[in-house]
Amino acid sequence: MIPNPLVRARVDSLRLIDTTLREGEQFAGACFAFEDKVEIARHLDAFGVDYIELTSPVSSSQSRRDLERIAALGLRAKVLTHVRCRADDARAAIESGAQGVDLVIGTSSLLRRFSHGKDIEQILAEAVEVIQLVASHGLEVRFSGEDSFRSELADLLWLYRAAEVAGAHRVGVADTVGVADPLTVFDVVRTVRGTVRCDIEFHGHNDTGCAVANAFAAFQAGATHVDTSVLGIGERNGITSLGAFVARLYVVDSEAVRGRYDLASLRELERYVARLAGVEVPFNNPVTGPCAFTHRAGIHAKAMLAEPSTYEVLDPGHFGLERSIDVAHRLTGWNAVRHRAGQLAIALDEQGARELTLRIKALADVRAISEDDVDALLRDATASGAVPEAVR
Amino acid sequence: MIPNPLVRARVDSLRLIDTTLREGEQFAGACFAFEDKVEIARHLDAFGVDYIELTSPVSSSQSRRDLERIAALGLRAKVLTHVRCRADDARAAIESGAQGVDLVIGTSSLLRRFSHGKDIEQILAEAVEVIQLVASHGLEVRFSGEDSFRSELADLLWLYRAAEVAGAHRVGVADTVGVADPLTVFDVVRTVRGTVRCDIEFHGHNDTGCAVANAFAAFQAGATHVDTSVLGIGERNGITSLGAFVARLYVVDSEAVRGRYDLASLRELERYVARLAGVEVPFNNPVTGPCAFTHRAGIHAKAMLAEPSTYEVLDPGHFGLERSIDVAHRLTGWNAVRHRAGQLAIALDEQGARELTLRIKALADVRAISEDDVDALLRDATASGAVPEAVR
Repeated sequence: MIPNPLVRARVDSLRLIDTTLREGEQFAGACFAFEDKVEIARHLDAFGVDYIELTSPVSSSQSRRDLERIAALGLRAKVLTHVRCRADDARAAIESGAQGVDLVIGTSSLLRRFSHGKDIEQILAEAVEVIQLVASHGLEVRFSGEDSFRSELADLLWLYRAAEVAGAHRVGVADTVGVADPLTVFDVVRTVRGTVRCDIEFHGHNDTGCAVANAFAAFQAGATHVDTSVLGIGERNGITSLGAFVARLYVVDSEAVRGRYDLASLRELERYVARLAGVEVPFNNPVTGPCAFTHRAGIHAKAMLAEPSTYEVLDPGHFGLERSIDVAHRLTGWNAVRHRAGQLAIALDEQGARELTLRIKALADVRAISEDDVDALLRDATASGAVPEAVR
Repeated sequence: MIPNPLVRARVDSLRLIDTTLREGEQFAGACFAFEDKVEIARHLDAFGVDYIELTSPVSSSQSRRDLERIAALGLRAKVLTHVRCRADDARAAIESGAQGVDLVIGTSSLLRRFSHGKDIEQILAEAVEVIQLVASHGLEVRFSGEDSFRSELADLLWLYRAAEVAGAHRVGVADTVGVADPLTVFDVVRTVRGTVRCDIEFHGHNDTGCAVANAFAAFQAGATHVDTSVLGIGERNGITSLGAFVARLYVVDSEAVRGRYDLASLRELERYVARLAGVEVPFNNPVTGPCAFTHRAGIHAKAMLAEPSTYEVLDPGHFGLERSIDVAHRLTGWNAVRHRAGQLAIALDEQGARELTLRIKALADVRAISEDDVDALLRDATASGAVPEAVR
């Protein structure tokens, strides 16, 4: 179960494309003003993502102006915009000053029939033309299918190969509808990896809760770029979350991840975007969820106190966070209770801690209790002489 | 990309062990009274899970009494309790009236050193004794390692084989710390599948956001039982979410899933548990998150209106929910605007819809707008004769 060294080495070369300012704008609660976009872009740049993707300049006048101004900020991260695979859209993208253009067109039979009505030959002919147009202006260009996992693999491979030959720097595999699972993603991306030499980007939705794992499987199979958004905001219930995906990479190679990303700024970035999008950081959010480093069960607490890595694969300190041991409930154990006594400078032997633990459990069986209740029980017991006196 | 027929057939034979009443109690916000537990157990039973796991009877007096009473309710689902792999704990479990006992002991070197201090030989000897004790009382017995993915695979396989020979009906593979990824889970579970004939259970934490995908990979590799909790509540940021995992299975075989689970009751079950645990249903929750079926981008809305499966792999109607097309924002498109006009019995031709769409985008560029704003623009335009009059 030791991570594959090849996978570890590659964490360093993986590129993150954060699309909070494009996919995130498609989240029902999101409406970003220009100042908000600048703040998010600067946050993301400081955090360490490699690319920042913005809404198409043809979506609205403000979308165009915002893109022009953010592309001119001189961020370290490259600014991309995401447009339909059409010459008009591509020209607007080129004129915006963006450093790269992400082209997308539906390739599933459903989208070909109900969205644009084109067959694969038409898609290919237009794609080649638009890719050549963007590339001729010296910009990075990506060509992506939409709904790749409900497209014919043979069609996709043919399109990707033609896109590469036409000058695309990157092809995109997109789970637009959240239908894919990690083994399927691994298979498809590995097949694409064997077909083209250019970079491969993965974009995955979270309809069945697999967006982070799918992105990781794509990375393991050879994807060079992964799309994320802050908290995963996007169409419907969203996409791969930046924080969760970085946590997944951290487990593979914490040093590489710490060297590349400003992990301690993650919580503030997430809170900022949550406020703008009108949502709460989910209670179960990896890393920054309110209880992500709270340990409760007695047997967990015991081992945690001896060695935190027993129940933690992420060091909260690396994310600017702290762990906590929750002692005030009926599942508590005497090691955790003795530890809490120590924090209050109350010395307890094992027997005393065991007795007090039974009292805490008895009280917690009657009503919800807080750490204050536990502290009061500890102080009472000490004062009454039921357990050894406090020492300093 | 057609689902493997063998995998599809197996959805019907998979067993869900819901542990909201054990793992869920380890979530920092949870404190369930007896009446709460009964309500949750009845909800889960009606939803269709196969097993309901409760906290160890040795945790507290109330835990014991609640277990006894819930085991006596006569639910369709089997009632399990989860105890340390010790004879005393197992005897309390046997006396409780539970129909099965889930035994657990730490098998990673970290837990062996910092939790219980036993080596693999001691673990094996005790496990055999405790398994035989439980099995001799005619109860279902599961033996699980803790932190399986940081244990030596050879140790695990040796323990699992010995557990099976001793009479265990099921062995458990547990990602206690959320370190595993789906490919690793697939590998390990497939290896276990080749080693024992008994059932295999998977339990996975969500520290890096992969708990749903890991459980699905375990299922694909041959696991017969998967642990879930409502909304995924559990230690730290929790485990595999029942609703998300069922959504994942639905994508593989919607008919089997609809036949086995009362999908329309999921939202109420999640809301009930969320209220008790003091949390909100996450904005990004699969299926029941507030925007899980909200479609925004113009190109999405256009195809959705023609054929919903273009951007939906879950039919909201099967979950007692409805989709919505969000038309009031700068990413909207004329097909969505014309559709909204139709709902208001305002007839718009393409040209009229395109003009109004530009006006909606222009307004949305200035401030956040609502559907009321869109409706007002539609009605104004009609009244002023800028577009064809309303017809009935």
